[in-house]
Amino acid sequence: MKKKTKNLKIRFLGGVGEIGKNMTAFEYGNDIIIVDVGLTFPSIDMPGIDLVIPDCSYIIQNSDRVRGILLTHGHEDHIGGLPYLLKDIKVPVYGTKLTLALAENKLIEQGVKGVKYNTVKPGSKVNLGAFSIEFINVNHSIAGACALAITTPVGVIVHSGDFKIDLTPINGEIVDITRFSEIGKKGVLLLMCESTNVERSGYSMSEQVVGETLDKLFSANSKRRLIIATFASNVYRVQQIVNLAQKHKRKVAFLGRSMINVVETASKLGEMRVPEGLIVDIDKIKNYQDKDIVIISTGSQGEPMSALTRMASDDFNQVKIGNNDTIIISASPIPGNEKSIYNVINNLYRKGADVVYDDLNSIHVSGHACQEELKILHSLLKPKFFIPIHGEYRHLKKHCMLAKDMGVKDSNMLICDIGDTIELLPKSMKRGEQFKAGSKLVDGFTIDDTETLVRDRIHLSEDGIIVAICCISAESGEFIQEPFFIQRGVVLLEEQILECKNIVYRTIHDFDIKELGDNAELKRKLRKNLKNYIYKTTKNTPIIMPVITEI
Amino acid sequence: MKKKTKNLKIRFLGGVGEIGKNMTAFEYGNDIIIVDVGLTFPSIDMPGIDLVIPDCSYIIQNSDRVRGILLTHGHEDHIGGLPYLLKDIKVPVYGTKLTLALAENKLIEQGVKGVKYNTVKPGSKVNLGAFSIEFINVNHSIAGACALAITTPVGVIVHSGDFKIDLTPINGEIVDITRFSEIGKKGVLLLMCESTNVERSGYSMSEQVVGETLDKLFSANSKRRLIIATFASNVYRVQQIVNLAQKHKRKVAFLGRSMINVVETASKLGEMRVPEGLIVDIDKIKNYQDKDIVIISTGSQGEPMSALTRMASDDFNQVKIGNNDTIIISASPIPGNEKSIYNVINNLYRKGADVVYDDLNSIHVSGHACQEELKILHSLLKPKFFIPIHGEYRHLKKHCMLAKDMGVKDSNMLICDIGDTIELLPKSMKRGEQFKAGSKLVDGFTIDDTETLVRDRIHLSEDGIIVAICCISAESGEFIQEPFFIQRGVVLLEEQILECKNIVYRTIHDFDIKELGDNAELKRKLRKNLKNYIYKTTKNTPIIMPVITEI
Repeated sequence: MKKKTKNLKIRFLGGVGEIGKNMTAFEYGNDIIIVDVGLTFPSIDMPGIDLVIPDCSYIIQNSDRVRGILLTHGHEDHIGGLPYLLKDIKVPVYGTKLTLALAENKLIEQGVKGVKYNTVKPGSKVNLGAFSIEFINVNHSIAGACALAITTPVGVIVHSGDFKIDLTPINGEIVDITRFSEIGKKGVLLLMCESTNVERSGYSMSEQVVGETLDKLFSANSKRRLIIATFASNVYRVQQIVNLAQKHKRKVAFLGRSMINVVETASKLGEMRVPEGLIVDIDKIKNYQDKDIVIISTGSQGEPMSALTRMASDDFNQVKIGNNDTIIISASPIPGNEKSIYNVINNLYRKGADVVYDDLNSIHVSGHACQEELKILHSLLKPKFFIPIHGEYRHLKKHCMLAKDMGVKDSNMLICDIGDTIELLPKSMKRGEQFKAGSKLVDGFTIDDTETLVRDRIHLSEDGIIVAICCISAESGEFIQEPFFIQRGVVLLEEQILECKNIVYRTIHDFDIKELGDNAELKRKLRKNLKNYIYKTTKNTPIIMPVITEI
Repeated sequence: MKKKTKNLKIRFLGGVGEIGKNMTAFEYGNDIIIVDVGLTFPSIDMPGIDLVIPDCSYIIQNSDRVRGILLTHGHEDHIGGLPYLLKDIKVPVYGTKLTLALAENKLIEQGVKGVKYNTVKPGSKVNLGAFSIEFINVNHSIAGACALAITTPVGVIVHSGDFKIDLTPINGEIVDITRFSEIGKKGVLLLMCESTNVERSGYSMSEQVVGETLDKLFSANSKRRLIIATFASNVYRVQQIVNLAQKHKRKVAFLGRSMINVVETASKLGEMRVPEGLIVDIDKIKNYQDKDIVIISTGSQGEPMSALTRMASDDFNQVKIGNNDTIIISASPIPGNEKSIYNVINNLYRKGADVVYDDLNSIHVSGHACQEELKILHSLLKPKFFIPIHGEYRHLKKHCMLAKDMGVKDSNMLICDIGDTIELLPKSMKRGEQFKAGSKLVDGFTIDDTETLVRDRIHLSEDGIIVAICCISAESGEFIQEPFFIQRGVVLLEEQILECKNIVYRTIHDFDIKELGDNAELKRKLRKNLKNYIYKTTKNTPIIMPVITEI
């Protein structure tokens, strides 16, 4: 009798809206491996929230089976959740050297010690339980990015990580197309491929294009001070600016904590090359003429506390913006950040500076594959099954359409969601059980119960709060003191407050004081009567909290 | 002795961030005319606010001098503030027929009666005090849009309104280039020109292009139901869809209150032509096959209560989305609306529908002039002075650069702000006094004090609120009841609440109860001590409101 083959389970863990970006688990029998543990930044509908991390409860419950965490690259949305998970469980971490160094920085910052880091060279393999994982070099907007070819008992799964195809990359190697084609030739059971730029036709531009544009801008602004804002983690971009500074005989000052951290880490590992004597401390730039300085700064997304935002609003002592400054924003706005960054740009212009930020100027290229690049990966790997990852639903849907054009059958594709389990066998792929997964919102030190918190906060922010305080004699049921109201985020006029008092009097008067009990019913009535009146006169529905103190 | 010439004053009134869009006043001696009275929609940093209107206090104080309000066109951001101003003052309103009809709808809705409407035909003139105003036909995304040539005692001012140059417009006439060139030949003292698309090179596309794309989409989806979302006020767009429905033998159902209002108004005025028998009520669409129906709907910006958003989240009984639906979003997201509209698109895809929304598809064109069109206007008018309007600072700055290329001297341009007065003479233009102007936030029925309100709300939403209630005997200063805490938008753990109680006990104990007085000092101390503790243990800074009831 033929033994029934066990299936392989893929579990989609946390993240905001985008599956397979922040965290994915692969499970076979008694073995679990995890790909990435990232975080996301809160969206505008999460007021006061600092970070969003994956809900790892499934992993923590099954921690004895977890063989390792594999990191595809060192961006926050792929490594930022690690400290929160590794506080709770001990699991070795695998990744390329820059990825691990950035992860280690994060873990040390948060006081998580005793983690076992295993550096993996692109092209080499890691064996973990039933899995053998090969790291394959890809291009991306950070050094050391890899795709993973995961050999499992049911077949080979390729997880693209974040990637693009850059045939003229800076410092790094071209994506390992040869290896992809070899793996494809042997047969790929499942491709999980990122979908960020699936709506963009053609190819993404090479990082080198940015260098060429920046070179022209250095020349055109040879008498002016240059301030270039970009992502700290984009070591290629920073390297190009450093090279141009050297060519154009300018000193470089780094600005922003993460910029300084990444440059330090990358230089130590040899992923960046910053010539000695080129760097000056930001406090020393006043000793140089404008034309002899380029400042490389964070804040390209208009983050409220970043150096660039503070410079723009004149709240930054070390650099004062004036009309001999040219600010280059070498990044494009992450959706949702448009207003913040344009505010910064407006303020820089107000100070008389020149600002270069147009798409026209090719001062930024995306780190994600466009349609033709995705097609190249599909055509090299020729997977039997396909799951699009890393994108909103519309991206995943379009990626399926692209996969269909590339020969994947409709019935062999699935669009998944966080909390889905996919069961994979050599000849089938289907949806399995749902499990507890999703987002945890981090608010200062608070991680639990944050969803109610956010719901309350949104309600507070839209309509405010009214606390109605009633001091009643427990014996007679009479008011010991006039009821009074505390209001925040809502404005009641004098006469409206008076009427609210009357409503409180009437409601309590009409109420059989014997029934008071735990006051729940009385509170409910007070809330309802006040709410009706306040809505009628203000069109607002504040949170109404009656407080009854019985003395 | 030569009499000193009086200067002409231009006053920039309300609006959010963009000058000259919502409202501008021109003042000469005893005469004031107003161009547009618009509103804007609240940005994300104004929680709970419904609308933003100009602060008209200057106009109300000088209402006896106001000779008339001139409307350039019927968009909300140019007419939406009228009801709030005309509640307070009586001034005649001038505009083309569609503009006035839309304005009248708004005024009637809000119960403002007795307004004198004066219909102006493009090409004709209105005399108001020292001013003579000519309405000049321009193209825009609404019918009846005009620029204004204002002849004043100091010279001619041209106010562009919102415009583009469309050489193949739908229904309407081409922008009156001839008239602009005549006016330019006679001499223009000042051009005030909109700047929305100054960052876009080339020309805006003709509205006709959208019709061609939609025609192809009608053909490609001949078996499916079509739902097209667009701006209600874009009567040309709606007209084109109606024409295509007729051509492709489909019935049309309109959806959304503003869509139905605008179609009714525009048809009545002859600005739209909807053949009888083509329209079916939305309740009757079930009597037709999918292929025989096109629904024209509002909601192209993902507005929470719009029909399209509700359809997407299955909260709309009249239309259920399924896999035989193709939804076309014939609009581009207004900055800030990206997330909402993409959410709607994701949800439509989840229901199995096809969604067409790519820029690739040319299913929307802008109603604003791009660089080459702006240059045409500049070159026809050859103004001595220039003020860019209608844009963020970065747009205004870029428009000045364009004007310089077109021959305006640096010293003859000004970038203005709301609250600025500009003083104009035949040979000079300079900044005058600042005056009270800006935004008023409308929250339900509340218009005043809304700024503190919004500040409080943002604080509430980021950190929540804690009300600490302490019942103290007025005689002994002892607690009659244990202090207790109400918290919303913040989560204190059991042990933290316990410690907060201790802090309250300690603070009141340490306090000389004789000093209680109005409690202000005690409250301050309670607030400070609780705040320090809560920040230390939660990293949050909620609003803390101590309530001391002395009995």
